Amino acid sequence: MATESASTSLPLRSAKQTGTHPLAPLSAEEIEGTVSIIKAQWPTNADLQFKSVTLEEPAKAEMVPYLEAEFHGDSLPNIDRRVSVNYYLRKTNKFHEAVINLTQQSVEYNVRLGPNVHAPIDGEEVMEIERITLEDEGVKAEIAKLQLPEGTQVIVDPWPYGSDGIDDNERIFQLFMYIRDPENSSEADSNHYALPLAISPVVSAETMKVIRIDHMPTGKDNTLKETQPYQLRPANEYLPEHQKLRTDLKPLNVVQPEGASFAVTEQGTSHIVEWQKWSFRVGFNAREGMVLYDVRYDGRNLFYRLSLSDMNIPYADPRHPFHKKSAFDLGDAGAGAMANNLKLGCDCLGTIHYLSAVLADEKGAPMDMPNVVCIHEQDGGIGWKHTNYRTGRAAVVRNRELVLQSIITVANYEYILAFMFNQAGEVTYEVRATGILSTQPIDDGVEVPWGTVVHPGVLATHHQHIFSLRVDPMIDGYNNRLVYDEALPMPRSDFNPHGTGYYSQETVVETSGGYDVDYSNNRTFKIQNVDVRNPINGKPVAYKIHAPAFQKMISDSESFNYKRAEFADRSIYAVKYRDGELFAGGKYTNQSRGGTGVRSWADRKENIVDQDLVVFVQFGINHIPRIEDFPVMPCEIIKVSLKPVNFFDKNPALDVAPSTQEFNRSTLVSEAHQQGTTTGKVNASGEPEVCCPAPSSKL
Amino acid sequence: MATESASTSLPLRSAKQTGTHPLAPLSAEEIEGTVSIIKAQWPTNADLQFKSVTLEEPAKAEMVPYLEAEFHGDSLPNIDRRVSVNYYLRKTNKFHEAVINLTQQSVEYNVRLGPNVHAPIDGEEVMEIERITLEDEGVKAEIAKLQLPEGTQVIVDPWPYGSDGIDDNERIFQLFMYIRDPENSSEADSNHYALPLAISPVVSAETMKVIRIDHMPTGKDNTLKETQPYQLRPANEYLPEHQKLRTDLKPLNVVQPEGASFAVTEQGTSHIVEWQKWSFRVGFNAREGMVLYDVRYDGRNLFYRLSLSDMNIPYADPRHPFHKKSAFDLGDAGAGAMANNLKLGCDCLGTIHYLSAVLADEKGAPMDMPNVVCIHEQDGGIGWKHTNYRTGRAAVVRNRELVLQSIITVANYEYILAFMFNQAGEVTYEVRATGILSTQPIDDGVEVPWGTVVHPGVLATHHQHIFSLRVDPMIDGYNNRLVYDEALPMPRSDFNPHGTGYYSQETVVETSGGYDVDYSNNRTFKIQNVDVRNPINGKPVAYKIHAPAFQKMISDSESFNYKRAEFADRSIYAVKYRDGELFAGGKYTNQSRGGTGVRSWADRKENIVDQDLVVFVQFGINHIPRIEDFPVMPCEIIKVSLKPVNFFDKNPALDVAPSTQEFNRSTLVSEAHQQGTTTGKVNASGEPEVCCPAPSSKL
Repeated sequence: MATESASTSLPLRSAKQTGTHPLAPLSAEEIEGTVSIIKAQWPTNADLQFKSVTLEEPAKAEMVPYLEAEFHGDSLPNIDRRVSVNYYLRKTNKFHEAVINLTQQSVEYNVRLGPNVHAPIDGEEVMEIERITLEDEGVKAEIAKLQLPEGTQVIVDPWPYGSDGIDDNERIFQLFMYIRDPENSSEADSNHYALPLAISPVVSAETMKVIRIDHMPTGKDNTLKETQPYQLRPANEYLPEHQKLRTDLKPLNVVQPEGASFAVTEQGTSHIVEWQKWSFRVGFNAREGMVLYDVRYDGRNLFYRLSLSDMNIPYADPRHPFHKKSAFDLGDAGAGAMANNLKLGCDCLGTIHYLSAVLADEKGAPMDMPNVVCIHEQDGGIGWKHTNYRTGRAAVVRNRELVLQSIITVANYEYILAFMFNQAGEVTYEVRATGILSTQPIDDGVEVPWGTVVHPGVLATHHQHIFSLRVDPMIDGYNNRLVYDEALPMPRSDFNPHGTGYYSQETVVETSGGYDVDYSNNRTFKIQNVDVRNPINGKPVAYKIHAPAFQKMISDSESFNYKRAEFADRSIYAVKYRDGELFAGGKYTNQSRGGTGVRSWADRKENIVDQDLVVFVQFGINHIPRIEDFPVMPCEIIKVSLKPVNFFDKNPALDVAPSTQEFNRSTLVSEAHQQGTTTGKVNASGEPEVCCPAPSSKL
Repeated sequence: MATESASTSLPLRSAKQTGTHPLAPLSAEEIEGTVSIIKAQWPTNADLQFKSVTLEEPAKAEMVPYLEAEFHGDSLPNIDRRVSVNYYLRKTNKFHEAVINLTQQSVEYNVRLGPNVHAPIDGEEVMEIERITLEDEGVKAEIAKLQLPEGTQVIVDPWPYGSDGIDDNERIFQLFMYIRDPENSSEADSNHYALPLAISPVVSAETMKVIRIDHMPTGKDNTLKETQPYQLRPANEYLPEHQKLRTDLKPLNVVQPEGASFAVTEQGTSHIVEWQKWSFRVGFNAREGMVLYDVRYDGRNLFYRLSLSDMNIPYADPRHPFHKKSAFDLGDAGAGAMANNLKLGCDCLGTIHYLSAVLADEKGAPMDMPNVVCIHEQDGGIGWKHTNYRTGRAAVVRNRELVLQSIITVANYEYILAFMFNQAGEVTYEVRATGILSTQPIDDGVEVPWGTVVHPGVLATHHQHIFSLRVDPMIDGYNNRLVYDEALPMPRSDFNPHGTGYYSQETVVETSGGYDVDYSNNRTFKIQNVDVRNPINGKPVAYKIHAPAFQKMISDSESFNYKRAEFADRSIYAVKYRDGELFAGGKYTNQSRGGTGVRSWADRKENIVDQDLVVFVQFGINHIPRIEDFPVMPCEIIKVSLKPVNFFDKNPALDVAPSTQEFNRSTLVSEAHQQGTTTGKVNASGEPEVCCPAPSSKL
């Protein structure tokens, strides 16, 4: 990753160390070097289609001593740079996995993967599939039956086929088709999702040919109809030029006149961020997008690695071809590969620092991904406050937050993904779902209980969004345990004669497995280190997990959906750490069968008490579409927070300077207001003074 | 309520109508007029202690025609101004309730209330109780046993006694005692909660005398010890002068160079707020604090009245005197009476408009409450986004929010209460709990399962915070119904052969009662109007309730806690509207017995389908204290949202102008960066252009 430019003003620093950090994303040179080695394994004319060229992170057993040495300023051990590669022999199903050791300039292994293991989609492939589909004679014949107006543009969105065990061993794509509003054919950004077609070709990725053409049921049942002349519908555009825009919103600017409070240290493609006692290293790769490493607060170990592990979006319509519509947006596509360029002022507000990345394209060439992460501060409201009612003196501080944000576009949908840190030792992972519902055609006058009609002729089927956050903790050290607290009523007794007593009970999670939060007894999971005790109350230091309640995977336990999305049936999965076990849905999700994800790892039933463990936190929403979600949905926001419990000796934000008018420079809507002096004390008349010092004359 | 000052710049307007609005809070003159009439009912030397002098809101049957006439610009019906008064004959238990008709200058009724009906606390009373307690000989003798250092200040916090059915018919107070750090005696804001005492006097409010002195158990059981010489402990101060403050936080200012986008129309003590198609009227009273009336979006009826109905904080320690520690912060004290003065820049950030209020003091005199509500906009991140992956063109808008905020201090605790509106037709009620834990002494080396030791010698008992938001809807009209949706799996069948199908099912809530959200089947409540249909899909217009999961009241159903906090056992209570039924815990909560709150109203089992109904939404947290919550806790944030479902014909924020650099004026941390021109299209090389127009030269 590179930052946009060097600067003398503020927080961009150069690293003290030279050389590539072991956790640094691959540089362009490293990508090229790796690809050369791979190519050298094959005849010169071999056409290789690269699906990923990504850092193979060092074994934790190597990495931990390195990070500790780095933190303490000791000499750094040598760690080989290794690269993981996935590639096809183009136009075959020969899918390979290789690990290259760049330091040794060697191939550690290079194997063809077995049946039913398929690569994610890539952008070039998607464009080619679109092209060959629209040129296919059979598809053209179907389209002709629609009798579309002259010049109508037909759009195809290729989707991973999904899995149902029926002729689905090969790597194939299900295509969803739409037309662009015929009245607006030249508008390349016309919203084709408002005009879905019932024709759904299936394409073989190996042969790049249409192998059959499915049709969608458009009524209440499985009835399929011959393709009819298309009934034209109104458009439903989201572009601003199609709206009567509001004109009464005044600008709101976030200004940091002395610059931002965070510092970014650039070390090749790797970046260290420091802010308000937090420090961590940021990485980026095609699959996960942003990854945070070595997260510390005030130098204390907190998280070895934080990342989005995957997400799954299964759909509710039981009919073909929808029954297998279940997207794994990281495993099937990639949060890094799909990341937006966050251009100044449009996606991020305030004093912004961008991070860019370099990924590999399907030819194995480096591909610049500018501005894929933005970093900025924001005001999060009041952090804490207390007013002594006897004196009227208020002590109040504001909650400043640091945000690292990335946005991904996965065909119709967008996800805004952000890590947020605050001054009270808390880290939050926030997801906002937005973009466009996935649509299918429906006949007029039909209602179905598995979706909502959001536009004439347009059905948006219900679907779940289930996310999995991978938390690899190192709370004050590398041996942690997972426990959960529950709040339970005391039974009536002589000790509890009024029936009001309750107590908290802690249970240790002894074995890897899946677990659930349960708000009915306030069941809350905490990651503890029993070797480090709070100096005040002797409790083990810990971080608790605030995970929202959500409806788990509805598909039944025999279904492919359930078997593939191994994380989606539980709030929490806890497993013993093993190198390489990063992806809760398995390494290869496209048309997967299950058996390689977190549920399977958990089934090893390993002891995870005072061990190196990893916690996967699931959270999500059941999206029952409403009209207001179309043509683009307002952001739906969900988040997971990690908060200290008995980790500090008092509120860690106690030392934040008080909120004052001098600092905040708020203004009155009315400028004529006169402000009196305030001293924070009780004045001679016994009236409480308010909290702020006298505003400066600059106001 | 009055605004701070008139202004020509922007949004303060004068109302077209003259005369007092029927929903306007009482003016100072009206308070005085009411008090005169009350006093005239008694001999001239009668000493009356006023507990509340509040607007008696007109009957809804009168108010609705008025509001509709007002909205349509028709002539306005006359509605009498009526005032509700509660008062004591001072130093007796003769508690009265009266309603005065100011228009008629008459007394509608003036009755003495029965046994076990007691008034809330008031500030003067609290100060007098503190004084007489510290002067009591028995209390002084107990304090003497502590052998405190010379000059130590003893502090008493009077609490409502609570209820346990044991000698608790009279109006009495339980006092919690603390000392101020002896090393810091002159600091009036020293944190006495760090130094709690085990002495707990009980005071009669009627006689203003100490009637007994309780002692607190300080071990693991009920054992009480004779008052021992006090073991001095370290202090735990929150004041900034006691901290080594952070010095590395740069200012962050929110600036609206063209002013704010909202307009406030002042009509006497009443205020109308208009912003981004929202309009509503703001009121304020001693019990509820902020109240919103006549909430409309784009002129369409949404909510007749929105307010916090009450909150209950029951504690987990089963031992005397804690078994009855259960605070109703609105009913026992008052969100208006306890409201902070939000001084510029300290509590609210940006371009602020304050509203002030006038309440009545215990002598019945008007009492100014300046700056009790602040109104401002804030940026809420991205509102919606979609990028067409084929062209790279992004459409993105930011989510601007309007915030009305109030902060209350209830002895040790603070609650930050805010209504938030956004541009997608959504309204959110947010509560932040902060301030200081309620503490009690604990012996060294003792741990108990019903609390956390947060400081040497200091136990913070577990407690629940359960809030009740009163939602009086008028979704596109005054006859609404409450329904809930659940997402249920389809059984396996020929229609659902893969086990992936699911559907949503709607159930009508026919009868008043208590109901629960249930995330295991995504049970979501919606308020619908079946007489108004969505033009796209024919569904009834509705607003859904996003209420978080939480642990309901743990105290068992035979307990006073459960009987008194009638709202605290369910997520939702729905009842048929009746005038005066505003307070979910009953009108008089202090030492209450239950039977007068929402559970009792719901037990009338009335039909609430297509009626005027009211929905109480409960939400809360089980607070298991941690060290980080002391000496002041970082805000814990919970919220309830009301969101449109099939109310609009598309995303209501679609017409928000795009987010652009010109509007947002974000800056790069690095100023050396050069920006290229962008047009939002695909350029000649086929590369996508990004979303923003060329930055202005002013950048």
